[in-house]
Amino acid sequence: MLVSCVVYQHGKKVADIQANDIHRYIAEPGCFVWVALNNPSPEELALMQDEFDLHPLAVEDASHGEQRPKIEEYGDSLFAVLHMLEQENGELRVGAVHMFVGSNYILSVRRGVQRGFQDVRARAEREPELLERGSGYVLYALMDAVVDRYFPVIQSIEAELDRIEDQIFANKSARESIEQLYSLKQKLTATKHAVSPLLDALTNLSGTRVPHACLGMQEYFRDISDHLQRLNQSIETIRDTIATAISVNLSMITLQENETMKRLAAYAALIAVPTLIAGIYGMNFNYMPELMWKYGYFSSLGLMAIIDSYLFYKLRKAKWL
Amino acid sequence: MLVSCVVYQHGKKVADIQANDIHRYIAEPGCFVWVALNNPSPEELALMQDEFDLHPLAVEDASHGEQRPKIEEYGDSLFAVLHMLEQENGELRVGAVHMFVGSNYILSVRRGVQRGFQDVRARAEREPELLERGSGYVLYALMDAVVDRYFPVIQSIEAELDRIEDQIFANKSARESIEQLYSLKQKLTATKHAVSPLLDALTNLSGTRVPHACLGMQEYFRDISDHLQRLNQSIETIRDTIATAISVNLSMITLQENETMKRLAAYAALIAVPTLIAGIYGMNFNYMPELMWKYGYFSSLGLMAIIDSYLFYKLRKAKWL
Amino acid sequence: MLVSCVVYQHGKKVADIQANDIHRYIAEPGCFVWVALNNPSPEELALMQDEFDLHPLAVEDASHGEQRPKIEEYGDSLFAVLHMLEQENGELRVGAVHMFVGSNYILSVRRGVQRGFQDVRARAEREPELLERGSGYVLYALMDAVVDRYFPVIQSIEAELDRIEDQIFANKSARESIEQLYSLKQKLTATKHAVSPLLDALTNLSGTRVPHACLGMQEYFRDISDHLQRLNQSIETIRDTIATAISVNLSMITLQENETMKRLAAYAALIAVPTLIAGIYGMNFNYMPELMWKYGYFSSLGLMAIIDSYLFYKLRKAKWL
Amino acid sequence: MLVSCVVYQHGKKVADIQANDIHRYIAEPGCFVWVALNNPSPEELALMQDEFDLHPLAVEDASHGEQRPKIEEYGDSLFAVLHMLEQENGELRVGAVHMFVGSNYILSVRRGVQRGFQDVRARAEREPELLERGSGYVLYALMDAVVDRYFPVIQSIEAELDRIEDQIFANKSARESIEQLYSLKQKLTATKHAVSPLLDALTNLSGTRVPHACLGMQEYFRDISDHLQRLNQSIETIRDTIATAISVNLSMITLQENETMKRLAAYAALIAVPTLIAGIYGMNFNYMPELMWKYGYFSSLGLMAIIDSYLFYKLRKAKWL
Amino acid sequence: MLVSCVVYQHGKKVADIQANDIHRYIAEPGCFVWVALNNPSPEELALMQDEFDLHPLAVEDASHGEQRPKIEEYGDSLFAVLHMLEQENGELRVGAVHMFVGSNYILSVRRGVQRGFQDVRARAEREPELLERGSGYVLYALMDAVVDRYFPVIQSIEAELDRIEDQIFANKSARESIEQLYSLKQKLTATKHAVSPLLDALTNLSGTRVPHACLGMQEYFRDISDHLQRLNQSIETIRDTIATAISVNLSMITLQENETMKRLAAYAALIAVPTLIAGIYGMNFNYMPELMWKYGYFSSLGLMAIIDSYLFYKLRKAKWL
Repeated sequence: MLVSCVVYQHGKKVADIQANDIHRYIAEPGCFVWVALNNPSPEELALMQDEFDLHPLAVEDASHGEQRPKIEEYGDSLFAVLHMLEQENGELRVGAVHMFVGSNYILSVRRGVQRGFQDVRARAEREPELLERGSGYVLYALMDAVVDRYFPVIQSIEAELDRIEDQIFANKSARESIEQLYSLKQKLTATKHAVSPLLDALTNLSGTRVPHACLGMQEYFRDISDHLQRLNQSIETIRDTIATAISVNLSMITLQENETMKRLAAYAALIAVPTLIAGIYGMNFNYMPELMWKYGYFSSLGLMAIIDSYLFYKLRKAKWL
Repeated sequence: MLVSCVVYQHGKKVADIQANDIHRYIAEPGCFVWVALNNPSPEELALMQDEFDLHPLAVEDASHGEQRPKIEEYGDSLFAVLHMLEQENGELRVGAVHMFVGSNYILSVRRGVQRGFQDVRARAEREPELLERGSGYVLYALMDAVVDRYFPVIQSIEAELDRIEDQIFANKSARESIEQLYSLKQKLTATKHAVSPLLDALTNLSGTRVPHACLGMQEYFRDISDHLQRLNQSIETIRDTIATAISVNLSMITLQENETMKRLAAYAALIAVPTLIAGIYGMNFNYMPELMWKYGYFSSLGLMAIIDSYLFYKLRKAKWL
Repeated sequence: MLVSCVVYQHGKKVADIQANDIHRYIAEPGCFVWVALNNPSPEELALMQDEFDLHPLAVEDASHGEQRPKIEEYGDSLFAVLHMLEQENGELRVGAVHMFVGSNYILSVRRGVQRGFQDVRARAEREPELLERGSGYVLYALMDAVVDRYFPVIQSIEAELDRIEDQIFANKSARESIEQLYSLKQKLTATKHAVSPLLDALTNLSGTRVPHACLGMQEYFRDISDHLQRLNQSIETIRDTIATAISVNLSMITLQENETMKRLAAYAALIAVPTLIAGIYGMNFNYMPELMWKYGYFSSLGLMAIIDSYLFYKLRKAKWL
Repeated sequence: MLVSCVVYQHGKKVADIQANDIHRYIAEPGCFVWVALNNPSPEELALMQDEFDLHPLAVEDASHGEQRPKIEEYGDSLFAVLHMLEQENGELRVGAVHMFVGSNYILSVRRGVQRGFQDVRARAEREPELLERGSGYVLYALMDAVVDRYFPVIQSIEAELDRIEDQIFANKSARESIEQLYSLKQKLTATKHAVSPLLDALTNLSGTRVPHACLGMQEYFRDISDHLQRLNQSIETIRDTIATAISVNLSMITLQENETMKRLAAYAALIAVPTLIAGIYGMNFNYMPELMWKYGYFSSLGLMAIIDSYLFYKLRKAKWL
Repeated sequence: MLVSCVVYQHGKKVADIQANDIHRYIAEPGCFVWVALNNPSPEELALMQDEFDLHPLAVEDASHGEQRPKIEEYGDSLFAVLHMLEQENGELRVGAVHMFVGSNYILSVRRGVQRGFQDVRARAEREPELLERGSGYVLYALMDAVVDRYFPVIQSIEAELDRIEDQIFANKSARESIEQLYSLKQKLTATKHAVSPLLDALTNLSGTRVPHACLGMQEYFRDISDHLQRLNQSIETIRDTIATAISVNLSMITLQENETMKRLAAYAALIAVPTLIAGIYGMNFNYMPELMWKYGYFSSLGLMAIIDSYLFYKLRKAKWL
């Protein structure tokens, strides 16, 4: 679906144009064309390939959804793939945006996510002096928006991890904790796959040898790179924390088992000892003086109660109960 | 076994030729010879060594099956080893293809797998403008085919891992889960051995200093390299997931042990308490008023039932039962 | 809040000035302006941006608290971010200091910690020959102060770890040990996030290609780098020790479980054997000679005592009790 | 012990010579001297030092057995240390060979292993056109022989590992499996110490800047390097598999414990329930109607049997028995 | 404390001198001054700083004990820090030596260890041709002595590890094994901190760009570097072995637990079965034929004995007892 297709001159919007007029506008000096597609059909993509004269390998990549984040040069133009992450009801949805960047055009192809880049375009149009810088600036603005949307994902993972930690140390629902840690790890992996290859790819845009379209923008791309490094550090920390939490959880489970066993033993003792006493007074010896006592029976019950009380006190003190 | 032995000119098939005519055709300018062998005998290999004038160390490698994936230069020619993976009935079969690449010939030696490269050759013959590029393009096409066949292997490993995860959290057949995780890890290792050294080797074909036969094909080899990186990332993720699954499985087993112990304790209590009561009323004291009651016996049975019901209710509430 | 705003000439204090006079003083040759802010309001920061003509991306970083430690060049000026660590009641508070360093000024922006840099400024004013070196020296002095304050944090973590280790091997409060190890790890991670990126960033100031402001100060920055490497090594060692302590703790818990089980079994035996004897003499056979004996009852009690004493002796010897 | 001391000219053997004539022959142009020592005495080594004019640090290394594999240049000559591995009765014996390589001589000093290099010398003498290449070729031939002898060691480790894996999953002799995995790991470490430093050292002989004696032999040394990489990969895989096997074994042990506990509980139940019934009918109430029944006793036994049969059936179905 | 302060000329001792004459001797051409301090007071260190004109940052490092091993250049002079390890009664003592190396002097400052460098000085004085090389050689000789003293430490760690392994597999004192492994790991860490940073630092002395004082000594420093690599490899191996031993120990403990549980179950069965029989014959049914039998009582005891013997035989066979 074509979301928008706009021509700019000197940073100001000139007109919304038809897709099949694109080739005329990008041939005109001073014009800058910014096109946004969402889940395009193969035909739309083929039209774009013709209009912008895109490289077939890059278009093939863009037509398959599943790609690693990367920034590749094809001659003078750039092809960038970024993952997009969206949360909904605790689930993580992974989409992608493919960007074709030429000296005076940018084409973004979004797939699998709902939120687009309308806000980025709106802000860019409010700042014509920046938009005038052309495709390098727009590429920066789009990448910055995508990367900024990773932060809430990491924050929600961190929040969930905090919640699970509390659960572990409160000794509650160990089974659930394991399952949640496991599924958290999968979310984290999805985030890592979005961040980590992009960080590698970005070194080319913030270093000394920079593609033509990004000249003079190094400080901006270094800023994105800095954000990604921060995300990367958070991911590594969470990853390490999950591993520790899993092993700590195992310790807690084993500890609980130990305590279960102690309580089991304690209760068993509280029952076994009176059983033994009852057994003794159930023996059939001819001469057993206690049996003749008037209050023998009650004394024996009393003995049971006294021994059990003492045991209970000792076991409670030893924290077995 | 000689699968095919064909001469091309300007990207079009000229003729099927005899193996011992090869040296004549590769001496002719403009000719391109593409030979495919499957599980060749030592004699066939020796004939090829003579016809193509191959390097003895490379031929020795090709005659032993077991090699790491690699791409080596011998003077102007290239020698490439790739692993081939084939699934059959849940088993993974590891074969190999060895490729000798000269400026105007390519010789592929396949071992240990059933599926050949007929489809690659057919597609190449349908696109003479690409085939005309010569050995570099054919090398790309063959490598691309081999690497593309890795994806279903990884996907089936991922599917099996998903299945095992469900099993773990459903608390079913822990023993089987362990065995399956272990054998999955071995399949993964075989895949890693196919992918990882090839990725290292490919940097030489997609970088700046490129062997003569592959000049102008860098973007194509970068595409393969990109596929391999994607596979590599999947492998690392699966590897990490298997390790986590093993340790999570241990936690689940320990947890189940804990629960077994609790149930054991609970049932023991349900039996031990009435046993104690029976023991008490089995004592032989002369004066035990309850024994005289008419419904003493039934009252004692009732007492047992009441205490057990109460215990049962408490234990169920505490989730021990 | 503006903490201080001072002009120096030849290493000696000239005057406390107003914030909005700064631009006049830094324009004057031979003047050096050193400004310190603490938790500044956006307006204060905006004023500083105007007075010092700071780069907008750097100011944006400084106005958000959360940044990774880093040292970035913006043209001729430097922008440095350092984490500051403060301990209070066993809690670790993480703040930050942002420093803008030009050829004849330094602006430090502190956030989230109580202790400032008054002592650094006092010492610098006592050593005018060093202060005369300008912003490079002041940057060194501030960084050195920040890094020196990391050492007590690491030492208190090491002390706490020692205490937990003793607890583990004394077999006391395993549950607490786990929780404490876990929270120690989080403190360690916070320290690592302060140290590790700074170490990377510092290589630029102590190497061969050095920003203009830091020329001739390489040996001093190498000294800071050396301190950071020492901290880093301690962090790695503690990290490794915590991991080992967690797994050792699990072993100790399992071992304790094993001992609990042995004691359980031992006590069970001490009760079960006399119960069996009592059961035997509770049988109702017509002809049981022991039942007729005068001291049969006392003999049976004696038998129970003797067997239990022997069992007790054996079990104690086998260390089950 | 001097094994052999031979002079070659143009790749052909000229004569067996005395050790103290060596200095005369290596001074003669066109001569190549190849000397082999086995467990030499200090005097023999001192003689060699004089005859070949060897560097004292290298000779000191060769006189101490324990060295890491390495290849060092001393001026124009090379000093190489390789570990030799020999299996005997399931034990791994680690020896070493030290090689001094000059432009027209090679001296090999073997220690601690039985098998020598007679076969290498014999093959070299059969191929004078290769032997004529001099010390570079002999160094290659000796290294190739040493490295080829690593393969059976790795294969026997792999076979033993396969056997232990079967044992683990067959739930047999967990104790033995642990011990065997542990001792396998030690064998693997010995192999790793032989392979891994040598691989690093070899990059110098197969790269672009090559010692004089090895000029023109790069493809051969690359071949050894390739073998070592294959060994290295196998070692890493085995190492990883051993770690997984240890943790899987722990899971299996815990699982077995769980099953033991279930059986324990099941058998306990099968005994405890009839004990309770017996206890009930052992009560001394005056009015217990069942006691009067003619077949009361047999009915009670029958009741016990029926309940136990039912329990047995249920427990077997739940796989507790 | 000043240990010795000697002037050499042409490798031969000239005189013991006073500390405050040093500056005169190092100004004289051809003189070489070698000073050794042990646990110096701040005043002694200050005197040395004046006499040798040492860099204040280096002196500050030397006056604080705790430093990482390192080799730093201050202009033409070198400053080296090495850890010294000493064993006493199974404890590891960590000291340090700081060395200031100029073109014609060397000053060593030893702290926290008892054994000095008298033997190094004695050997150097016996070999004037080597001592004549000056500070580079003395630096080598001292470093070589320090590094050689690491080997017995590693060997004693290896010996202790061997002892613990035997203990683990003999199933003895699991608790002690854990504690010992843990303390062994701490010793190992201390050794690693001595070896590993020094190895990094030494690459500067054995590479191509070498400080002036060490010119022509590269092969000697490469030898030290080689020793350190050997130590490093041993450390890595021990580290890995300790980790494996800890996890193997956990497996052994779990296994023992399993066996404890089986014995518990077995003994419980041996008591529970006769208890049930006794219970049955303690029932009060009017008609129980066995009770009338003359030898009923003895038959019941016999039945108990037979069943228990059979059970004992079965349990012993199943290795539960």
